[in-house]
Amino acid sequence: MTELPPPTLDDATRARAELALCGLMAYRELTAFERLSSDARFSPTIIDRVALARLAVHEFGHYERVVEVITSRGAEPTDSMEPFVASIDALHDRTRPGDWYESLMKAHVIDSVSGDFYVAISRGLDPDVRGLVQEVQALDAQNQWLHERLQEALAEDPRLASRLALWGRRLLGEALTQARRIADSGLFNDALITEADEAGEEPLGVLFAQLVENHSRRMAALGLTA
Amino acid sequence: MTELPPPTLDDATRARAELALCGLMAYRELTAFERLSSDARFSPTIIDRVALARLAVHEFGHYERVVEVITSRGAEPTDSMEPFVASIDALHDRTRPGDWYESLMKAHVIDSVSGDFYVAISRGLDPDVRGLVQEVQALDAQNQWLHERLQEALAEDPRLASRLALWGRRLLGEALTQARRIADSGLFNDALITEADEAGEEPLGVLFAQLVENHSRRMAALGLTA
Repeated sequence: MTELPPPTLDDATRARAELALCGLMAYRELTAFERLSSDARFSPTIIDRVALARLAVHEFGHYERVVEVITSRGAEPTDSMEPFVASIDALHDRTRPGDWYESLMKAHVIDSVSGDFYVAISRGLDPDVRGLVQEVQALDAQNQWLHERLQEALAEDPRLASRLALWGRRLLGEALTQARRIADSGLFNDALITEADEAGEEPLGVLFAQLVENHSRRMAALGLTA
Repeated sequence: MTELPPPTLDDATRARAELALCGLMAYRELTAFERLSSDARFSPTIIDRVALARLAVHEFGHYERVVEVITSRGAEPTDSMEPFVASIDALHDRTRPGDWYESLMKAHVIDSVSGDFYVAISRGLDPDVRGLVQEVQALDAQNQWLHERLQEALAEDPRLASRLALWGRRLLGEALTQARRIADSGLFNDALITEADEAGEEPLGVLFAQLVENHSRRMAALGLTA
């Protein structure tokens, strides 16, 4: 997402966008924890249950980290999360995984798209908030594990490919719908504006095109048609 | 449970009981994590969701700690857990909390009764296994928080008392049934024998009487009739 130049924001707008981004990340990480750990019970083996549980615990660690930042700015974490409860809950309700593989895929796709979206929002924000986004959303060891585990499953059972490709497209669609809803909420408007948008293209069109492109690249890396 | 004198075990019996106890604790902690974190979603407020999530993450930390010990003894964690899967799953299936308060109560009662049971099994085992039991099952900050949160809820809504008292009795009954099943499995027989049992009382009668007594004391501390 480095291609998009950072917007110039006044202090009040930046501070407001920073707190809103933290609230968004906190609620996303908390619900990712809850959903992943619930899904863990339906894993094929105890080893797989533990793997998903560990992933969930990792997301909870992110939640705690973001809440620290919110609190250090004198804000109330629940107040910061509140504006995002409805759209994130809706995203989860519309993307209930049917089995363990769909859970893995959901974690992989939603974590990645969300991460790209947060990076885009954070372009014009303080370096410490940009650092937090990197910390929380880095394509780290956990995401690498997800990628490898999915690759392994696809190699073992090629029939899985068409099902997971379809599921991946659905996940992307739902994630973009909610990202749009969040972008339209007015909480990030100035932080999300790009020069291309100002030049008259579809508002946020450049950003959303990039989210789709990054997703396609990740699906291709799994040998799936995005 | 200090009143019961430790049995004298031969090395092979002790080593077998130690590994079995670790397997039992590991699977209990893993499932406690899964169930608590699933329950968290139905908490009344985000703060309460986070509290239950944190409790769940704490149980997962115990799981990881016990698995370390199993692995350090050259055993396979899933093999050690396997004998306990059916009875612990049955316990959870028979004690699905109806709401957040019942989740809290379940964590409080089952953690405590399990802790007492593990202490009883561990009497004749190696000091490092006894230390692990203390570490995992200690009535620590988390359990103290559960107690205080339940007290607070009961003070706010006295009608909760009769419902939670009934629920507490049901939890105790189910926990004892599964403890009996585990005791009868033959994996811990010698480790659980006491002099009183040998003196002709109901096998394990002394132990089970103590489990009930400790439970009653905890319920009384909450102002509930056990």
